[in-house]
Amino acid sequence: MKEFESFIRDIHDFPKPGVLFKDISPLLANPKAMHDCTNALYDLIGDERIDKVIGIESRGFFFATLLANKFDAGFIPVRKSGKLPYKTVAESYELEYGNGILEIHEDAIQKGDRVVIHDDVLATGGTARAVCNLVEKLGGEIVQCNFLIELVFLNGKEKIQEFPYAALFKY
Amino acid sequence: MKEFESFIRDIHDFPKPGVLFKDISPLLANPKAMHDCTNALYDLIGDERIDKVIGIESRGFFFATLLANKFDAGFIPVRKSGKLPYKTVAESYELEYGNGILEIHEDAIQKGDRVVIHDDVLATGGTARAVCNLVEKLGGEIVQCNFLIELVFLNGKEKIQEFPYAALFKY
Repeated sequence: MKEFESFIRDIHDFPKPGVLFKDISPLLANPKAMHDCTNALYDLIGDERIDKVIGIESRGFFFATLLANKFDAGFIPVRKSGKLPYKTVAESYELEYGNGILEIHEDAIQKGDRVVIHDDVLATGGTARAVCNLVEKLGGEIVQCNFLIELVFLNGKEKIQEFPYAALFKY
Repeated sequence: MKEFESFIRDIHDFPKPGVLFKDISPLLANPKAMHDCTNALYDLIGDERIDKVIGIESRGFFFATLLANKFDAGFIPVRKSGKLPYKTVAESYELEYGNGILEIHEDAIQKGDRVVIHDDVLATGGTARAVCNLVEKLGGEIVQCNFLIELVFLNGKEKIQEFPYAALFKY
């Protein structure tokens, strides 16, 4: 996958001074890179029966729909508080200042569903862990936390250490 | 496509009193419905060469990635102000009170690119029109404004009447 790293663009000082942001827009704009990265994310999970693929708002949606399609699984969005219209269960997660809230529809996962959680980036692991908690609240089985990018120096994998996880690009 | 209308759920008084919201979550959660709706959205466009498929933040992302994949086209997100990390061009659109701003990366569309704009819902047409303006600013050719749902009574098609448009489900 080395050849696709050139499609991940470094943006300095976004979203705020001192942060180096990994911009995947050039990768999304390239059909072959999108296609091959979808296959590579799929291969990280392996030949499993998957019932639901969760995408975390909102950059997690991009590859989660494509993965759901490849697994012939349902696609489930996890969204920030107040965005989902039906009855939800919620979980809070730590932000730099205060807490955020993530929600999932209460009927999105059935007991025993085999679930992949996908997001674009594993950073501190706070959001990923909150989504794991949501899936467990609904009785789903987490087959893998699946990421396009892992920012290894932030050590987010520690927060999700009870669950299988994999990432395609590591920085 | 009649058989899939049962997967679109009416939510009363969301996001505010008096509004009937069309919730596509059950459709997204059903692999066959997702698959068949993607094909039907593709068929609305027809056998065209498409270079870029735009998804409008954030429910427009769901099917736009799948359509981009089917057309072997690039996927381009249009996002609300401040969310895109690289250099952008912006367009304002009317909200009920005041204006919103939508942005696209300035390098997302090349002159002459054949572009499909996709969103989940055509309502008043304000956002769709703003995205048409963004594509024209960058020199792209709009092949179709493509929607999963059209709320016909809001007459949004008037705002995008210079451009080809199509919607799968009409209410």
